[in-house]
Amino acid sequence: MAAPVALIQGASRGLGFGFCKYILKNKSLATVVATCRNPDGAAELRSLAGQHPGRLMVLRLDVNHEEDIRGAAERVKESFGRLDLVVNSSAMLHPSGKGETSLRDVSAQGIISTLTTNTVGPLVMAKYFSPLLLKGSGGFGQQPAEKAKQHSGIIVNITAKVGSIGDNGLGGWYSYRMSKAALNMATRNLSIELGRSRPKVVCVSLHPGTVNTDLSRPYHRNVPQDKLFSAEHSVNCLMSIVDTLNIEKTGKAYSWDGTELPW
Amino acid sequence: MAAPVALIQGASRGLGFGFCKYILKNKSLATVVATCRNPDGAAELRSLAGQHPGRLMVLRLDVNHEEDIRGAAERVKESFGRLDLVVNSSAMLHPSGKGETSLRDVSAQGIISTLTTNTVGPLVMAKYFSPLLLKGSGGFGQQPAEKAKQHSGIIVNITAKVGSIGDNGLGGWYSYRMSKAALNMATRNLSIELGRSRPKVVCVSLHPGTVNTDLSRPYHRNVPQDKLFSAEHSVNCLMSIVDTLNIEKTGKAYSWDGTELPW
Repeated sequence: MAAPVALIQGASRGLGFGFCKYILKNKSLATVVATCRNPDGAAELRSLAGQHPGRLMVLRLDVNHEEDIRGAAERVKESFGRLDLVVNSSAMLHPSGKGETSLRDVSAQGIISTLTTNTVGPLVMAKYFSPLLLKGSGGFGQQPAEKAKQHSGIIVNITAKVGSIGDNGLGGWYSYRMSKAALNMATRNLSIELGRSRPKVVCVSLHPGTVNTDLSRPYHRNVPQDKLFSAEHSVNCLMSIVDTLNIEKTGKAYSWDGTELPW
Repeated sequence: MAAPVALIQGASRGLGFGFCKYILKNKSLATVVATCRNPDGAAELRSLAGQHPGRLMVLRLDVNHEEDIRGAAERVKESFGRLDLVVNSSAMLHPSGKGETSLRDVSAQGIISTLTTNTVGPLVMAKYFSPLLLKGSGGFGQQPAEKAKQHSGIIVNITAKVGSIGDNGLGGWYSYRMSKAALNMATRNLSIELGRSRPKVVCVSLHPGTVNTDLSRPYHRNVPQDKLFSAEHSVNCLMSIVDTLNIEKTGKAYSWDGTELPW
């Protein structure tokens, strides 16, 4: 089997950076393509590349620009010709940095910005990278014995529990909640389209828990200490789920502990 | 009780126009505010206004422009000071007129346009019109005897069964499905915020069935004749549901036959 190639979108910090570190450390044969808006400013990512010579490729990609995504896919195609895993990690709570506590805080521009980054970006990623995933070697997840059920690649969309409509008992955070609900629909739709093909691409939404990142920083004091995960801990949990993924598990949303989330 | 006032957004044709006709005909005391992008071109609406002197006010409102929505809310406030019902009716399948059959058809701009009209618009409507609904006289729906459970107004967001993530078995129509899933989250969030207040505003998503309108026209030949509803029939069904709404039924999605839709 060819050496696995993973692409992590939104890799300069937080969860995305955690995925890069995890894969380089724990999947000794894998190569990682790390994308971020500003590679020049991504000192940690450059340092990580230095620690793993020839295994980490950093590409500029702003998920808000379709041309960036198309261009990055071209680069990956030229370099590797295929992909085994794509993780869509970048997200914003709201352009203001704080989720809306009530309708008063809602603005058209705020919702549109949030939807563009959190929802449109991952779907357009799937558009340009799924052809490469369809050529993947199936290096991530669990392959069943039956050949017809094997997958060539995996798409992970980082969702959030607050994006579950059925689970929503508190309200607020309009933009973020709506963006993640729409992202879950994208996951579901992708799992259908890419589950019909042969080979197949598995697509899931994963909820990382409340992670100690810039996104959640304004809310940390409301989170019990044992529920505020480090990015490292969250990525460990999520990669344990990725390791068990197969076509039977596609098209669903899972929490960090492996339980299925309601839509 | 003061005479009911209903606002129908997207009222120049299709379902929206059907709601105006229905209310003017069947709620003899009610006044209707009909909003559309281009009142000068809305001949049917002007004719309807002529048939019901003093009962139909037509306002220009493009749901894609927050300033339009704010301005229309000002006008309604000056004229009536309150509202009993808002129906968010306008929607697009995709700017091209056809839903995406596969990822190939997906574009960032197509999704963003669809989300802006179908999802952002109704939420921004709620932002500016909920203060008027909170002053409503509760003229629509079913009021329980217990005063604390009574509602002053109702928001109806027109959703679609294909916006149900759990019900999605076919895929395709990325933009439209995602926009309606996100709209359902908005409905849920609104029901929580406006269900805490006193008086309360009921908020639901309603699926009209497949209706013979411009939106669905390219797909009519795939729909069995008895499943292709006239706007009039669909509105009859939906208004039967509205007539039974109360705070116990808020925050859910219902199909034209009254059954609850999964998220």
